[in-house]
Amino acid sequence: MTPTITAFERSPDGGKGLARDTRVRWALEEVGQPYEVRLISFQAMKEPAHLALHPFGQIPTYEEGDLVLFETGSIVLHIAERHAGLLPGDANARARAIMWMFAAVNTVEPPILELVTARILESDKPWTRDRLPLVMDRVRDRLKQLSARLGDADWLDGAFSAGDLMMVSVLLRLRASGILNEFPNLVAYVARGEARPAYKRAFQAQLAVNSESQ
Amino acid sequence: MTPTITAFERSPDGGKGLARDTRVRWALEEVGQPYEVRLISFQAMKEPAHLALHPFGQIPTYEEGDLVLFETGSIVLHIAERHAGLLPGDANARARAIMWMFAAVNTVEPPILELVTARILESDKPWTRDRLPLVMDRVRDRLKQLSARLGDADWLDGAFSAGDLMMVSVLLRLRASGILNEFPNLVAYVARGEARPAYKRAFQAQLAVNSESQ
Repeated sequence: MTPTITAFERSPDGGKGLARDTRVRWALEEVGQPYEVRLISFQAMKEPAHLALHPFGQIPTYEEGDLVLFETGSIVLHIAERHAGLLPGDANARARAIMWMFAAVNTVEPPILELVTARILESDKPWTRDRLPLVMDRVRDRLKQLSARLGDADWLDGAFSAGDLMMVSVLLRLRASGILNEFPNLVAYVARGEARPAYKRAFQAQLAVNSESQ
Repeated sequence: MTPTITAFERSPDGGKGLARDTRVRWALEEVGQPYEVRLISFQAMKEPAHLALHPFGQIPTYEEGDLVLFETGSIVLHIAERHAGLLPGDANARARAIMWMFAAVNTVEPPILELVTARILESDKPWTRDRLPLVMDRVRDRLKQLSARLGDADWLDGAFSAGDLMMVSVLLRLRASGILNEFPNLVAYVARGEARPAYKRAFQAQLAVNSESQ
């Protein structure tokens, strides 16, 4: 059964890979699962029909027969559990790959979201100039710890997994800030993710939507 | 094999259920799995021996033979996958329970963390009085959506699951702010979680540690 995902009709970043459907497209491309895309406007995201699928009024959603999922972590895990290629066969290694998925969204992404909020939603506030360095330091603390753990390995725990897919996706949101450049091994890690053919296909598919809609 | 978790030697909240080991204790109590606890000081959390287990220098960790996990979401999921009681048997319902675990840590918890940061880490900053209402509104927006989805149901999707365990745990962090009281169905939802015998045992076990160490 071909799943259907939702994505922005017009992505705030113009389709440069930062909208969260990229993560789901990437996972589907890694495992070779074709999918349909239903584009949705900002206005429609807040209307009852979409809220019935996604109570928080966001994208992406994932529909497959009777199953409706939101939350990129759970969608990527669902895909990874049903296809080979994103989770190791060994039980302990599999648990650790899932651990890195949670680390991406619950430990590394929150300070990054706070930085995005400070730079965008609070950009016009009088405190933002003085506060931004504190927020950046909180991101830096996390990256320092992640960088120390990664060391000179290619991926976080052995072969590429759904954990890396989520972590690279989260780190990509930092590119505009320049902070990532302070950690050369994380820059190289993100570049390895972006170099994967499946990522490139996902990125191009998202970019094509946004090019068409301009 | 009896797993070992780590927990604060002295919890910042005095053992009132807000430290993240509560979630793991609760899951272990729900499934009836005995466990050992190794207490750790703030200083030891940042030292190499603990960083080898948890690269972000936090608690809890979970050790079971050769397996070492951190991230409460992944630990609770690991427990839920190996024991009955925390995930439904139906495949789609199981995927949705995991979806709510991710929603708890990636959609509901980040604005709550931002509020905790504003109230604690930035309490002495000149901007905090003016900024706090904005942060509280961001939490409120999420709670409004969550409250709308929960409606008058007991749990988020049918029977109690690991998704509820994580969501209740995240919402508990809001109690001191008073915001939760604006959403009576969420107050009742959290109370149902706290009324579970497994939660009570987890809470008491954590409180006992902190009472002893005073």
